Amino acid sequence: MAVRRKRRLEIAQYVEGVLQQDRVVVSQAITLIESTLEEDRTLALQLIDQLLPYTGKAIRIGITGVPGVGKSTFIEALGQHIIGQNQKLAVLAVDPSSQRSRGSIMGDKTRMEQLAMQPSAYIRPSPAGTSLGGVASRTRETMLICEAAGFDVIFVETVGVGQSETVVHGMVDFFLLLMLAGAGDELQGIKKGIMEMADVIAITKADGENVHPAKMAQNEYQSALHLFPPAANGWLPKVVTCSSMMNQGIDNIWELVQNYITHVKKNAFFEKRRQEQNLQWMFETIRSTLEEQFFRHQDIKKELPQIVQQITEGNLPPLTGAQKLLDIYKN
Amino acid sequence: MAVRRKRRLEIAQYVEGVLQQDRVVVSQAITLIESTLEEDRTLALQLIDQLLPYTGKAIRIGITGVPGVGKSTFIEALGQHIIGQNQKLAVLAVDPSSQRSRGSIMGDKTRMEQLAMQPSAYIRPSPAGTSLGGVASRTRETMLICEAAGFDVIFVETVGVGQSETVVHGMVDFFLLLMLAGAGDELQGIKKGIMEMADVIAITKADGENVHPAKMAQNEYQSALHLFPPAANGWLPKVVTCSSMMNQGIDNIWELVQNYITHVKKNAFFEKRRQEQNLQWMFETIRSTLEEQFFRHQDIKKELPQIVQQITEGNLPPLTGAQKLLDIYKN
Repeated sequence: MAVRRKRRLEIAQYVEGVLQQDRVVVSQAITLIESTLEEDRTLALQLIDQLLPYTGKAIRIGITGVPGVGKSTFIEALGQHIIGQNQKLAVLAVDPSSQRSRGSIMGDKTRMEQLAMQPSAYIRPSPAGTSLGGVASRTRETMLICEAAGFDVIFVETVGVGQSETVVHGMVDFFLLLMLAGAGDELQGIKKGIMEMADVIAITKADGENVHPAKMAQNEYQSALHLFPPAANGWLPKVVTCSSMMNQGIDNIWELVQNYITHVKKNAFFEKRRQEQNLQWMFETIRSTLEEQFFRHQDIKKELPQIVQQITEGNLPPLTGAQKLLDIYKN
Repeated sequence: MAVRRKRRLEIAQYVEGVLQQDRVVVSQAITLIESTLEEDRTLALQLIDQLLPYTGKAIRIGITGVPGVGKSTFIEALGQHIIGQNQKLAVLAVDPSSQRSRGSIMGDKTRMEQLAMQPSAYIRPSPAGTSLGGVASRTRETMLICEAAGFDVIFVETVGVGQSETVVHGMVDFFLLLMLAGAGDELQGIKKGIMEMADVIAITKADGENVHPAKMAQNEYQSALHLFPPAANGWLPKVVTCSSMMNQGIDNIWELVQNYITHVKKNAFFEKRRQEQNLQWMFETIRSTLEEQFFRHQDIKKELPQIVQQITEGNLPPLTGAQKLLDIYKN
């Protein structure tokens, strides 16, 4: 405990360091945010409270795509482009599943090598967390820290195969889906509903022999998207091609992001969406806290496996199972 | 209280009545299910417990579409077709929003007039409930009652504009989306992500001058769906046209449902999905119960509005707001 405490700063030091864009303090602040210790949580909440007036100015972009789509090289390319425009970029990851093995931490360090060396870029792997709700909440808080530290653009990266896309969609201003040319096996991994959330779909690896298939995919998706429900904000999702390797189409994507932001700022959907996201965040925090407290309870932990088994075997009605657990928790 | 109790039967009477397919007892059992009185809940859980061995044999079909798509006439037409094949049909509605005004109860009685007169059909409007979770849970329970009462097919109907589609998708074997021809304004009402959940999309009102636009829409959607992620169960969603008025294409839709069921029973996805749905149901029940208890709490009710306002105005970080409420609840 003493060792751990030693690594914590005073609240004023965190605030000052973050606002002065001290990279080391930013990292320490994020580590504080990610801590699950109760005393750290109290401090973390105070920190965010004090930083709140300095947050909200960045453009928040969700980026998703299945493994193999070239997400890291794409983020490198787009990241370099953004930095080249004198903007500061933070890249955060939301990926609770890979955290179980702690695999992505090493992965993130070797990935995006060039970007990681840039002083205007900051790359932070996914926080450790048992639940998606926990990881998502920490990512949101980390986003605020980065905003207070003067980052202009924040990428929230996720693997397009799980539940996390909906969660990321709920915390960003713009949602970018990366896809490969050719509608076939590579679609297998994508979760249903994700395509309809995208503000821009980028067909990656449009170079060499892939240029033609990518163009074809672009046309197909663009006409398909016309058939799907339009967004309330009046933005019609665009489909583009790009090559991270050849650095082609990357600037175009950044232009689209800016067009989009201009569009939604003009019609007030930008502000409206952020307000909704904030309320949603509060309700989700309450929900996930209640749930975590429930499932962390010793007696629940003990009873849950056999109830799950009985329900799976059809020997127990789901709501009787739920009632049993709720009764245990109540007493 | 005495009046209310008088209307309740003994548990054995409910069980016997439902199993003997006594229509009056079925209705009384569903009324019991829908009751929020604690003593009724206990009885309801016992009832479902005892009926469980007789449930699970029906085909559960979710039907959705925006107002104006002709949902009632479609359900009449498909319902008549199903009854014509010596099958018994129950039609349940999930529509928490319209329940606030209690509008749909009268609506349901005047809608589907022909079907309502059939002895093999049973139409039950949406239960009253404050939350979607509550309504959804009651609908699931009602579904079990109907199955124990020997209904072969159950329609769960919803309006395709809210959150309820995902919930309904989570309780049925097959999901049918009704749409109008011409991709335009009529898409406005549909929530994003719903199209990707559909196992069959039916373009309705394909009669008279509408035949050609409907065929065109069919082709467009069918090619668009090829571009979207396939379902894990290997079923490629079909797009068809139909006219409830002319009774055209209705038989084809029923055949597709049966093909689908055969397909997923063969590859074991039918059973797998039901097991998953049951577990999901248990977890959802726990979640929504915890949440309902929280938001029903007097002190929470009192504090919530101003916290919501402060967050909306940007004066309070969402998680500080959440923490405040959680602290109040704890003490």
